[in-house]
Amino acid sequence: MILVTNDDGIHSEGISALYKAAVAVFGINNVVVVAPDGPRSASGMSLTFHKPLRVEHIEEADFSGFATSGTPADCVFMAMYKLLKGKSIDLILSGINHGSNASLQSIESSGTVSAVKFGAAHRIKGIAFSLAVEMGEHKGMFAKAAGHVEKMLKLIEKTGFPRGVDILNVNIPSNISNKTKWKICSFEPALFKDFVIERKDPSGKKYYWLAGKPKEQFGAGTDCRVLFVDKEIAISPIELSSVSARLKEETARVLNAEIA
Amino acid sequence: MILVTNDDGIHSEGISALYKAAVAVFGINNVVVVAPDGPRSASGMSLTFHKPLRVEHIEEADFSGFATSGTPADCVFMAMYKLLKGKSIDLILSGINHGSNASLQSIESSGTVSAVKFGAAHRIKGIAFSLAVEMGEHKGMFAKAAGHVEKMLKLIEKTGFPRGVDILNVNIPSNISNKTKWKICSFEPALFKDFVIERKDPSGKKYYWLAGKPKEQFGAGTDCRVLFVDKEIAISPIELSSVSARLKEETARVLNAEIA
Repeated sequence: MILVTNDDGIHSEGISALYKAAVAVFGINNVVVVAPDGPRSASGMSLTFHKPLRVEHIEEADFSGFATSGTPADCVFMAMYKLLKGKSIDLILSGINHGSNASLQSIESSGTVSAVKFGAAHRIKGIAFSLAVEMGEHKGMFAKAAGHVEKMLKLIEKTGFPRGVDILNVNIPSNISNKTKWKICSFEPALFKDFVIERKDPSGKKYYWLAGKPKEQFGAGTDCRVLFVDKEIAISPIELSSVSARLKEETARVLNAEIA
Repeated sequence: MILVTNDDGIHSEGISALYKAAVAVFGINNVVVVAPDGPRSASGMSLTFHKPLRVEHIEEADFSGFATSGTPADCVFMAMYKLLKGKSIDLILSGINHGSNASLQSIESSGTVSAVKFGAAHRIKGIAFSLAVEMGEHKGMFAKAAGHVEKMLKLIEKTGFPRGVDILNVNIPSNISNKTKWKICSFEPALFKDFVIERKDPSGKKYYWLAGKPKEQFGAGTDCRVLFVDKEIAISPIELSSVSARLKEETARVLNAEIA
């Protein structure tokens, strides 16, 4: 089965677009939607252990699926261990997120990416899709983005998931068209020049807002450069599980310890 | 400066033990504590953008530091961009966590690890320390663990952080003694055999608890094997930023796309 989820919630335009692309490639009987019942942005990979979860089977205009009261990672957990009991998940598709998830910093806190990371820790391959649009400016863009998603899924269906890759992180630019190119890239470490805004409350006590604005320059070959400067589709492969021999040897040297 | 943080909160025994080890190696004027004002376990790398943060300067029995109303990642953010303005952070130490953070699945949702991941995305090296104790059974163990932490920090202070490594994830077993060995290892994908418990509320409607119990067997050379079976200290190096040429080439082949 192909599991479709996201962090914007089951009623979002992006999940509907992703579902259609998945059905076009894998067939309607092979695609199931399990997604949060509302937005869960920046949830990271948190799992809900401290309170019970509710699950509703719901009918959207274009599809039916399961809506949960949990996070994207909870949705994958529920799909694996309860909702699809007996059927295995071959691939997890997350998105299409409303907003980009480019740079290491962004993917580490992204709910969209967290769903596929949770799957990857259970050896299920996954793809996270994000569309770099601001709130309000997305008219027709998800449908255009879905055209590229469908092409990508067709190639993967035909050739197999890239060997050694656990997750593909795909970012689609806001000016998307049929001609937009695909570029395989690495990660910019951080998208934002972060800063903190200091304010005072009515009693004169300080409080703080975390804030950030995008950098103007990005490294060559990075997802941020491809997405925001070149305005092309940025595809970054992630190998979740690797600890290279080189890293182990270097750590063993510094700490004067054995490799297990 | 050396930044000490955690996800159990500034009043926890583990952060006090870690602070003392850091001061013994780097000196009292070079270590600063910025930690949550209470427990933030399983917070992942979420950042608090939607509400303001409070910061208090507090005096503990053994140290003084800043307590924030945010997550561990928020603490690093606040330290970098406000509280240490003008001084750079050379190393982030997170922990000593009450409970293990072994396996890919665990580190992806760990608040302890998230603090150093956030730092790594800003090119600051970090070490996450966790002690595999259950609630209640920790008498004197944090102090014993801190002895190993101090030795590790001394070696790193002397030789430098392992080249190419962004983060060290250190898990210390519950039967810790001076003789416990250090082993450099890779990651078990998932610590738990997960499952879902289905219940019915008084009105007969279903709800679910996410649950899991540890596996009995782990792969050779993994953190879970070293920590839970061999009962030694498991040290796993993480390279946060890498996308290898091999992964890029393989992805480019499957998707018939250029490398950026």
